Amino acid sequence: VSSLEAVEPAPAGELGSQFLAEIREQPRALEGLLSHAGEFARVAALARERDTRLVRMVGHGSSDNAASYGVYAFGLLPRLTALRDSISLTVYYGSELDLAGSLVIGLSQSGRTPDVVEYVARARRAGALTVAVTNDPASDLAEAAEALLPLGAGEERAVAATKTYLNTLAALVLLAAHLAGEGARCEDDLRRVVEQLDGVIPELEGRMPEVALPFSFVGRMFVIGRGVELATAREVALKLLETCRVAAEPLTATDLAHGPVAALDPFFPVWAIATQDETLPAVLEATARVSETGATLVASGSAAGEIARPDYVLPVPRPPAPLLSPLLSVVPGQLFAWALARAKRLDPDRPSGLSKVTFAR
Amino acid sequence: VSSLEAVEPAPAGELGSQFLAEIREQPRALEGLLSHAGEFARVAALARERDTRLVRMVGHGSSDNAASYGVYAFGLLPRLTALRDSISLTVYYGSELDLAGSLVIGLSQSGRTPDVVEYVARARRAGALTVAVTNDPASDLAEAAEALLPLGAGEERAVAATKTYLNTLAALVLLAAHLAGEGARCEDDLRRVVEQLDGVIPELEGRMPEVALPFSFVGRMFVIGRGVELATAREVALKLLETCRVAAEPLTATDLAHGPVAALDPFFPVWAIATQDETLPAVLEATARVSETGATLVASGSAAGEIARPDYVLPVPRPPAPLLSPLLSVVPGQLFAWALARAKRLDPDRPSGLSKVTFAR
Repeated sequence: VSSLEAVEPAPAGELGSQFLAEIREQPRALEGLLSHAGEFARVAALARERDTRLVRMVGHGSSDNAASYGVYAFGLLPRLTALRDSISLTVYYGSELDLAGSLVIGLSQSGRTPDVVEYVARARRAGALTVAVTNDPASDLAEAAEALLPLGAGEERAVAATKTYLNTLAALVLLAAHLAGEGARCEDDLRRVVEQLDGVIPELEGRMPEVALPFSFVGRMFVIGRGVELATAREVALKLLETCRVAAEPLTATDLAHGPVAALDPFFPVWAIATQDETLPAVLEATARVSETGATLVASGSAAGEIARPDYVLPVPRPPAPLLSPLLSVVPGQLFAWALARAKRLDPDRPSGLSKVTFAR
Repeated sequence: VSSLEAVEPAPAGELGSQFLAEIREQPRALEGLLSHAGEFARVAALARERDTRLVRMVGHGSSDNAASYGVYAFGLLPRLTALRDSISLTVYYGSELDLAGSLVIGLSQSGRTPDVVEYVARARRAGALTVAVTNDPASDLAEAAEALLPLGAGEERAVAATKTYLNTLAALVLLAAHLAGEGARCEDDLRRVVEQLDGVIPELEGRMPEVALPFSFVGRMFVIGRGVELATAREVALKLLETCRVAAEPLTATDLAHGPVAALDPFFPVWAIATQDETLPAVLEATARVSETGATLVASGSAAGEIARPDYVLPVPRPPAPLLSPLLSVVPGQLFAWALARAKRLDPDRPSGLSKVTFAR
């Protein structure tokens, strides 16, 4: 007969302290962006002068995730088609597309992503209106573009982006709102989101270590969203990949049914983002299918409470406009990644094999 | 001391026989598409008449994967911007975008995917030129669109698409080539691809059960490609998810470096597609980073032999034009999925929880 002693786990120390600090800083970072509101109005006026008919966004990683949101911000406010343009078509294959009437938005926190800078430089030479959205107004990207929209998030040091992602969402929606003549209202709404973030971040942070603990040995997850929340699904999956080494795949609620649902089983958790908008029925239908497989279901978002039979519920407040939901619904995912990385004794400030600025082709 | 007896594994029986039959049928299916070549010329003429400036593609699952290829086919041949348009923006949010000058291509094997049909119907009412690319010329999608391009693949019965995916690639490149005035050359090139498929399919089929066996307990993989091969990466990942229950995530070679590389370890294999074109240096750089992590590396594609330190090499022939590479490079992935599903005693003809036609929102 053996006697069991309680063994204290090794102290997690400072693992992820920078990452957490920057998650907490997000309301202040968003205020930083709003202090540049005049520049958004000016760039929107320039885009109208230049007869913008198509918005082309380019970026990698979190910047590209934010661009998924831009598709909806530009589509719903000024009713412009916006696309995450192929960088390789222009930069590697040298295809010279007609860029008349194109507003090109280069997205890079560091402003140093080589092929984004190269794409923007080529687009500018081809006559497009080019705008850099970056946290470094002195960067190559800012230099390459005709106009600059600074993220104003303050220096970001953790390798995994948080406040610059949030501010990129805000930059895209604020520019879109100004293009639609609704800039002032959007600014007011974003100030209300600052207050909501101030409330929800500490509340979720307190709960998260307990929520994350049972996921310590999870190797794979799906993260599902639809419409405006596809960006959130992509960003939460990326946080889990880079900080927690979880093979997390983002899917639209609909794409889940087109194949991936076959892979689910009780050891394959699903993180669902539900928002109170026109996509909610599709998300509820998808989560019902997830429940049937026995997979563990985490419900998050402003409509988390509408998901049937969730194992965990991580709600966020309803923003003043449904389009702003992704600025809140990413927070549970960021904090979950922080808590899960710590539970796994990984350091989300310094994931192995990554550096803050990615120069990879 | 115990004596070990050789235990015969349970016979796999007919697992995946339909899936394999349809993989083998692909050269004939492609000939089936080519028998409709005149229709492609007519739709291209119509698109020129209607002053096409933007191509909007909509589809889910394998059809959406093929649309990733369409971005390059239209971008490189007629130099038109093509995008995988947001279905939810139009169908759920009701955003009424300006569709003047848009060629809308609805992609659905069955022609019955509800939100694709709905998107096409709305786009047609809004004045876009709408084209259905479907394997069922009597389907709702064919009915909803102004013009029809039949896939001509013959009935597909396995739940996981193979020959209809290949024919959707061919349909997109053939339409793009006709728009660029290069239809006849493209047809000739596709006939050469038929011959190359006839050679490579049996060769790879013979090797694949031995290659797949060591992957029997793999739970997650990355599949990387770049440029024209992003479509292949997405399609191979989807086959692994739906037939083998492997959490396979498609990534561009560049996006791998923007976070996901941190998740790699020796138990996280990477499938890389390398093609002899302008994206090859980016793919080689990414696979070098994969090798550093100790992850098992499968090299496929027409430039598989250029990848350093692969664990497995699954080359395909070089097609007459580099743009056609994805019609060949998907084959190793399809056959690997077939062999791995059998090794895992799963039936790729009938993955659990899936049906051939997906009606999910």
